[in-house]
Amino acid sequence: MPKDRLHELAALLPPERWLTRPEQLAAYESDGLTAYRKRPVAVAIPESTDEVVELVRACHRAGIGFVARGSGTSLSGGSLPVEGGVVIALNRLNRILKLDPVQRIAVVEPGVVNSQVTQAAAPHGLLYAPDPSSQSICTIGGNVAFNSGGAHCLKYGMTANHVLGLRAVLATGECVSWGGRSRESVGPDWCGLFTGNEGLFGIALEITLQLLPKPERYHTVLAGYRTLDQAGDAVAAIVASGMLPGALEIMDALALQAASAAVHAEYPPGCEAVLIVELEGPRESVECDRLRLDAILAASQPIEMRPARDAEERLAIWKGRKSAFSAVGRLSPDFLVQDGVVPRRRLGEALRRIVEMSREAGLRCANVFHAGDGNLHPLILFDGRQPGALERAEALAGRILRMCVEMGGSITGEHGIGVEKRDFLPDMFRPEEIDCLKRIRSAFDPLEIANPGKMFPGPEAPALSRPGLHPLEAAGVISRE
Amino acid sequence: MPKDRLHELAALLPPERWLTRPEQLAAYESDGLTAYRKRPVAVAIPESTDEVVELVRACHRAGIGFVARGSGTSLSGGSLPVEGGVVIALNRLNRILKLDPVQRIAVVEPGVVNSQVTQAAAPHGLLYAPDPSSQSICTIGGNVAFNSGGAHCLKYGMTANHVLGLRAVLATGECVSWGGRSRESVGPDWCGLFTGNEGLFGIALEITLQLLPKPERYHTVLAGYRTLDQAGDAVAAIVASGMLPGALEIMDALALQAASAAVHAEYPPGCEAVLIVELEGPRESVECDRLRLDAILAASQPIEMRPARDAEERLAIWKGRKSAFSAVGRLSPDFLVQDGVVPRRRLGEALRRIVEMSREAGLRCANVFHAGDGNLHPLILFDGRQPGALERAEALAGRILRMCVEMGGSITGEHGIGVEKRDFLPDMFRPEEIDCLKRIRSAFDPLEIANPGKMFPGPEAPALSRPGLHPLEAAGVISRE
Repeated sequence: MPKDRLHELAALLPPERWLTRPEQLAAYESDGLTAYRKRPVAVAIPESTDEVVELVRACHRAGIGFVARGSGTSLSGGSLPVEGGVVIALNRLNRILKLDPVQRIAVVEPGVVNSQVTQAAAPHGLLYAPDPSSQSICTIGGNVAFNSGGAHCLKYGMTANHVLGLRAVLATGECVSWGGRSRESVGPDWCGLFTGNEGLFGIALEITLQLLPKPERYHTVLAGYRTLDQAGDAVAAIVASGMLPGALEIMDALALQAASAAVHAEYPPGCEAVLIVELEGPRESVECDRLRLDAILAASQPIEMRPARDAEERLAIWKGRKSAFSAVGRLSPDFLVQDGVVPRRRLGEALRRIVEMSREAGLRCANVFHAGDGNLHPLILFDGRQPGALERAEALAGRILRMCVEMGGSITGEHGIGVEKRDFLPDMFRPEEIDCLKRIRSAFDPLEIANPGKMFPGPEAPALSRPGLHPLEAAGVISRE
Repeated sequence: MPKDRLHELAALLPPERWLTRPEQLAAYESDGLTAYRKRPVAVAIPESTDEVVELVRACHRAGIGFVARGSGTSLSGGSLPVEGGVVIALNRLNRILKLDPVQRIAVVEPGVVNSQVTQAAAPHGLLYAPDPSSQSICTIGGNVAFNSGGAHCLKYGMTANHVLGLRAVLATGECVSWGGRSRESVGPDWCGLFTGNEGLFGIALEITLQLLPKPERYHTVLAGYRTLDQAGDAVAAIVASGMLPGALEIMDALALQAASAAVHAEYPPGCEAVLIVELEGPRESVECDRLRLDAILAASQPIEMRPARDAEERLAIWKGRKSAFSAVGRLSPDFLVQDGVVPRRRLGEALRRIVEMSREAGLRCANVFHAGDGNLHPLILFDGRQPGALERAEALAGRILRMCVEMGGSITGEHGIGVEKRDFLPDMFRPEEIDCLKRIRSAFDPLEIANPGKMFPGPEAPALSRPGLHPLEAAGVISRE
């Protein structure tokens, strides 16, 4: 990256918001996928959406790669700096521009933290439904880029189901507004196309979110089981009954051990698996469903059933669950968080195979999963100080992902492809499918400057591996020699 | 269109499934937008998805435009033949390939009629939720192309919310499979991008639909009001209560008159508007909501409230509502069905302005609308035999659509842009937004052979109005001289 190409960008911001010193850049070298590191050339800290637009336009003119970054919580390396590129840090774009309790919408900037939307909506009896485990720190911009889920997406869907409209700057520097305040619009779901783009199309500048009425009542039960299979059977029975709980989660023995160590969560002694079921909605329907749920759970032979008796007990159950990811760090110097999906009815089979594969690999694997929608989160424990341990852990992760695809599932439920899983894309899509996806990406970013090197396989941005002259080569910006 | 370019296509099918005689083509000249007509060069009737793929590939090689057609019920001219092109009629691809009551999915070919999916699912206690008024004749392929809605999309969403996966042939002849049996997949919502493409990206060959449990209980009420405003206020009160009815529909006096004439529907005498509310779901929650609904409706001062006492009375209420479109044909030799969206809270204002604008235009206008989601369907009555009457009706339709945009709504709720509304696209999108949409279209269809002349403004396919040589000109296939 010739330094002089950066001058135009640097000139857009005061020096204190254009970071280039190594000690300043160090904080941006990594994200939630801690095993990977890359140093950016510079970090830009815009304070207005206009500044973001100008930065993107300057990147486009100079052919400089960029990645937008919120809190850097991506678990797939999606917010990892790009080779020779700049980081556009959006944390200061953290205003809730509008909160309309009558229309039930919030219009927010991308740097707003997920849980702050719900906090702002709470006085009006409303909430923002998508609740990733990192909700107290992750930003809405990142949620949009990766179509984040959460424990309650069984009932409420993913981020895409809650984005009603957005204004974005494309990688070309063009500004677009798509969607609105209604689900009914023109043609394809342009807003849905942008949601989940993993930063490859551009940067969302203003996002209109749907707010929902806060459930009148919650009923949260924690049930401990002697075996994982029993917990899985209970899930199948609940789903078959036609009930739609807000959440339906399972943690295995190792995950329980981690959560106990980290937040002193207490689980029934002797259980190999814990099921968390949360009913929520109008008082009457929760009361009705509660009776049916109790009967189903009683028939599933748990060691113990613990309904939360008050809001505090409910929060304690969720605290244990949501801390499980980071808590695993207490059991092992390093771990890989995986994220795959299998058809719900094949959950039991998938878990048995993960246990087998872990044993074969000689690695411990904790399992935390959104059982209701078949979204697995195996946490593979390893010690990075041992030579070859990371590679063995990655190989096991790969086998698990390929199993998900074979079973008719997906290589990602909610973490995205990012850097981590780009080599698995061809396991899910055939060459002509990937080619079409690349063409769609080119419609947004013909120069491949927006988060290049992510999502698509290969060590470089996909255009670099295509035959013929890359647009940036033609423009004299890069050279492959 | 030089005849010899068609040889390759004609050779793909036996003569009885390759129609070229004028009397054969006449049946394909028009669709639900009856005011427009265009004669195709030929009609192909494939009997397998392989034949569809071969036809599209041959069109691509020869640069021949095509439109896929199911039952031809499009109300926006979306299935109107394209200039100098062929019609690919998909009615024989009408197999339900799989119906899995455990996974709650149906895999269908594009020519399957909407209501047949629900009929096939009914023995398992399941249904396919999207229910356009034309559901007894329209096909799933068309529903996917136009992201069709229906009376119950207030609660259940549009077609896009029920398509879990699809296999399609793109306009390039490439075959892709996107989505799966889960909402959680990779990156943007590719399936959602294809749904609503209006035939501009390619043809869906196999569609995986989500089935839902049939509601245990329905509670359907018809309430008659002295004024439209009162009916609108009742809708606002129901929505504000937090209840989510399955459907929330209003018909005005002229629509009621039409439905009475057509299917002998009986409405409370003296009412200027009728509100239809349908609660549905588990028995207990319908019972709970019913009490709240009765209280809200009683407070809204209807002339009369008529709850359906049994399934037959419920069907009679819906028969009146769903027949309203075609029934208007009994009041007037011709009519235009419009389709716009306004924010729900501005419904009353929108209706008052439509009444004013109709009076100014000297035209009668019946209103039928999905009140719950602000989706208006003004039916503009005119006599096409009078010179200038169609133009006056179109001008009124245009004023109504522009009002929808001004109010923050949309120029289409569920009928799509098609031919009819393409000149209004710039009212909704800025030039750089439309340019981006065109680039996305080019990712699927660089030659612009899939349903050209639809969705984008202008008399020709958009590439023809772009500077530089069109790819088909470069290939010597077309000439603009």
